[in-house]
Amino acid sequence: MTVRLPIAVRYAETDAMGVVHHSSYVVWLEAARVEWLEQIGLPYTQIEAQGLAFAVVELGLIYRNPARFGDRVEIETWLAECTSRTLRYEYRVWKDDRLLAEGFTRHLCQDARGKAQRIPQAMVQVLSAQRHGSS
Amino acid sequence: MTVRLPIAVRYAETDAMGVVHHSSYVVWLEAARVEWLEQIGLPYTQIEAQGLAFAVVELGLIYRNPARFGDRVEIETWLAECTSRTLRYEYRVWKDDRLLAEGFTRHLCQDARGKAQRIPQAMVQVLSAQRHGSS
Amino acid sequence: MTVRLPIAVRYAETDAMGVVHHSSYVVWLEAARVEWLEQIGLPYTQIEAQGLAFAVVELGLIYRNPARFGDRVEIETWLAECTSRTLRYEYRVWKDDRLLAEGFTRHLCQDARGKAQRIPQAMVQVLSAQRHGSS
Amino acid sequence: MTVRLPIAVRYAETDAMGVVHHSSYVVWLEAARVEWLEQIGLPYTQIEAQGLAFAVVELGLIYRNPARFGDRVEIETWLAECTSRTLRYEYRVWKDDRLLAEGFTRHLCQDARGKAQRIPQAMVQVLSAQRHGSS
Repeated sequence: MTVRLPIAVRYAETDAMGVVHHSSYVVWLEAARVEWLEQIGLPYTQIEAQGLAFAVVELGLIYRNPARFGDRVEIETWLAECTSRTLRYEYRVWKDDRLLAEGFTRHLCQDARGKAQRIPQAMVQVLSAQRHGSS
Repeated sequence: MTVRLPIAVRYAETDAMGVVHHSSYVVWLEAARVEWLEQIGLPYTQIEAQGLAFAVVELGLIYRNPARFGDRVEIETWLAECTSRTLRYEYRVWKDDRLLAEGFTRHLCQDARGKAQRIPQAMVQVLSAQRHGSS
Repeated sequence: MTVRLPIAVRYAETDAMGVVHHSSYVVWLEAARVEWLEQIGLPYTQIEAQGLAFAVVELGLIYRNPARFGDRVEIETWLAECTSRTLRYEYRVWKDDRLLAEGFTRHLCQDARGKAQRIPQAMVQVLSAQRHGSS
Repeated sequence: MTVRLPIAVRYAETDAMGVVHHSSYVVWLEAARVEWLEQIGLPYTQIEAQGLAFAVVELGLIYRNPARFGDRVEIETWLAECTSRTLRYEYRVWKDDRLLAEGFTRHLCQDARGKAQRIPQAMVQVLSAQRHGSS
């Protein structure tokens, strides 16, 4: 499944160059994967309730065109990879049909103390079934 | 005791008006009272280690002059009030001898679950002794 | 007119106390008054296109109950005052029928160089007509 | 030249996992490269005064260990590459001798309207002379 999260650019997300600060996209990607989990029926609050977290262990972003205050952008999000302990999400940030940015995040399943954990089998199944390209 | 915390304005703290976004000052005030606690020998990490927090329950700010990227500002901070359960800090934000903003925060002592607590007597004594105007 | 802007709490907006950081509300209020202007037909981008800004000159917030990741909150917003040069917005932050916070911001009309300006007469009329309590 | 910028973790930079949010590192890297430019005698404000900006066009980060409120971290920063139009910085985030994160940013020289520009020759010389590995 691919989810497109609409975002109205906040003034606080811009910087003195008059465009959205590059760190704001990092926050948007997070909101987008939270929405993705929500839509596949596995809300992140439910994952946390099991004492687990998907900590970000890697992040990559390419910025192609600036976003500005007043823009409505969309974060296209999909799960690209799901192993026994890690997830990889990929993202494209759009303003209409103009690509603003693209990127990925990699996550490690951890317990509340930050120790790496296997993703519970039932969760792997739900995630894998919604992985992009899976059928 | 009054503490002056120097802050180098970060580009990420500016907005499309070309000046520092008003929410950034709120973060600066927090850094300043953390430094104040550090300097009176009561680091906030030590307060948290006792299972307590000083949650912000009120905030007021007046903005007089803008700060810009590249500015070095100073947050003048003092404890104005200390009751059995609450603290009130006051602040002035300076760029050299130009007042940029002034404000206050009020805090409630809470346990880890957010329940109001009396500030431990020993802590009240340390805080009160450093309260502005106390002798 | 009163506008209620729904906001899905972002993980990045929380802090180590496990609740939404108090500075995040400041950003939410801004998003809410931007939406208010949008809904009365005076988008902020249009105000900026006239070379004007409504700079925040005062801010007050009282925090009553914490918000958490996963919460859907609503920012109730109205224009409480409109003078020839200033605006005052008031806000309440709700989670369902539970009041989380309430506050206000005061704004000064400025040109692009930060010089105080009279709000153009046509704009005052649009704003005043939508002021809370006006009929 | 390599610069190490010390940073006191701000409470606002943490999240509900109890550690520093991954987007905060992005802001730290920016502060670090601003300090690097300052120390080689080419402050970013001076670059902006010439109508130029080094817009972030790519960003990569690997997170190895969490930072927490109260930590003093250091951002080790160096210029890894300087072409006629682009820069590449590399970073390591340390807590004492423990590596917390490592990453890079790539930048494109732009004018105030966001159009790609050659980096002025004099600036290339100053930058290249301080490039890591240059002699």
